[in-house]
Amino acid sequence: MDYSIGIDIGGTNTVIGLVDNTGTVVEKEKLKTRDFTKTDDYLKAITAKIELLADRVKEENLILGVGIGAPNGNYYHGTIEYAPNLPFEGIIELKEILEVLLLKDGYNLKVTVTNDANAAAIGEMIYGKAKKVKNFIMITLGTGVGSGIVVDGKLVYGHTGFAGEVGHTIIEPNGRQCNCGRKGCVERYASATGIVLTIKEMLDKSAEESVLRAIDRDEITSKDIYEAALKGDKLALDCFDYTAKQLALGIANASEITSPEKVYLFGGLAKSGDFLLIPLKKYLNEFLFNVFQNTIDVELSGLKEEDAAVLGAAALCY
Amino acid sequence: MDYSIGIDIGGTNTVIGLVDNTGTVVEKEKLKTRDFTKTDDYLKAITAKIELLADRVKEENLILGVGIGAPNGNYYHGTIEYAPNLPFEGIIELKEILEVLLLKDGYNLKVTVTNDANAAAIGEMIYGKAKKVKNFIMITLGTGVGSGIVVDGKLVYGHTGFAGEVGHTIIEPNGRQCNCGRKGCVERYASATGIVLTIKEMLDKSAEESVLRAIDRDEITSKDIYEAALKGDKLALDCFDYTAKQLALGIANASEITSPEKVYLFGGLAKSGDFLLIPLKKYLNEFLFNVFQNTIDVELSGLKEEDAAVLGAAALCY
Repeated sequence: MDYSIGIDIGGTNTVIGLVDNTGTVVEKEKLKTRDFTKTDDYLKAITAKIELLADRVKEENLILGVGIGAPNGNYYHGTIEYAPNLPFEGIIELKEILEVLLLKDGYNLKVTVTNDANAAAIGEMIYGKAKKVKNFIMITLGTGVGSGIVVDGKLVYGHTGFAGEVGHTIIEPNGRQCNCGRKGCVERYASATGIVLTIKEMLDKSAEESVLRAIDRDEITSKDIYEAALKGDKLALDCFDYTAKQLALGIANASEITSPEKVYLFGGLAKSGDFLLIPLKKYLNEFLFNVFQNTIDVELSGLKEEDAAVLGAAALCY
Repeated sequence: MDYSIGIDIGGTNTVIGLVDNTGTVVEKEKLKTRDFTKTDDYLKAITAKIELLADRVKEENLILGVGIGAPNGNYYHGTIEYAPNLPFEGIIELKEILEVLLLKDGYNLKVTVTNDANAAAIGEMIYGKAKKVKNFIMITLGTGVGSGIVVDGKLVYGHTGFAGEVGHTIIEPNGRQCNCGRKGCVERYASATGIVLTIKEMLDKSAEESVLRAIDRDEITSKDIYEAALKGDKLALDCFDYTAKQLALGIANASEITSPEKVYLFGGLAKSGDFLLIPLKKYLNEFLFNVFQNTIDVELSGLKEEDAAVLGAAALCY
């Protein structure tokens, strides 16, 4: 049996998975991305995990390579470049450094890099719901908002290799300050970080009772908002409605560029299910130009949490 | 020699051109789109013009077909569907009706339809500056704002066939009312119509002297604003600056989806040249996510006014 190693680098977690050629994640290792402040230490820790997993199937001796999905990961250059949600700055020569570190330890493995959301899109195409879908947008709702865009069956890389940044399209020209230096990006509203900013604003501005008032303002997480919504908390429900509206605008604008048949949601916030999905579908149709109305299905990803990005990254090796 | 007939349907004019296989527009006929209120009369008038041009090369007997670029033109269906800037409502079965009308008169010609801006993009790719450019966006600045998007050398049609509507992406969620029923579309700011709305607002709100105050408010055209700018009129220059800023935001958002190498501007407003181009380049870089900054050249189309759309439409026949 063939294996490949798929790595999903996120702002919070880094997941390293050993994947077999049937698309099963055989074993997974995890690192907390934010535990590292130095790029070198982080890359050495990843290398150790790759070697650990490679050793698991040593006797079979058939690791095809390492695929990595990372924020601002560049397929053409094998780099991570200026990722606003990672603790590492500038350009990281991911492919080059990892290949050298691995080779030094006797592991001759080719490393391929792409955007984390692009990897998720590839995962959805190969193992998930998008097997026969020629035009779709994968939206990953994590610490930030990523996206992978497929047109006519192919992932869109564009001139730079960075195409598909729905999360950094601007929906409020004078809106919230984003980590990327600009204002009003989709990600400032529709990510786990964004929804927390929204609930804080709402708690400040509204006099509405809310179970969330019992939590220290600086400790509120997106999970707390979800749990409050489960209890029918009006402020939490309004917060999901607003989050869905902002995300819908970003998806609508992207859809007018590539006209997808499906939009798949993936990642932490997507687990909020109908609290997000129902208002999202409503607002998406309102924001769409008439010829696109009712032509786009919004669904949750067909892949298990975390696995889509790991599988997509692993699929880069084939 | 082979010929084809390319038709550019615009909100103001309809241009019907006889094009030879070297890409020369041999002869052109024009109709005022707004002179027609009934679809039937309009299609009969187009048919008469097609036959007139076809007769010009009767003895050579080699008209390959008719290509049409039209607002909301659908390549898959051969239709115009709910075009907000045309005087005709609903779905027009353009291909079917024209083929029947032509056949009745003894002309057996195949009709192919696409979006007018898509046709311009194809024209730029075949006859213009984009011959070797794999990723670009063509923006047509006319009565409305159209766009044709090329990814990896192919025009993006998407699931519906309507992909590439930069003009109807929303940049001001509570902005100006658009003909399409929604608010804050790029087209409400960056078209010939949009710039006139802007100057009227400016004339109302500002006390600034302007040569434009001598013109009846309801008679001001985008050409008047251009001529005022030529004279150094501050209000006219501010008006171009604001128009460029709004267009830049629309182009930036689209560029984060497909990451083009080039953006080509085409159509009436593009003729304003540097008044639009200089601020547009500045704002585009400000609005772009860091990885896209300085990766996109904005240029005027390499094709003559009107010809790009006609040539692109004609190229559909090959």
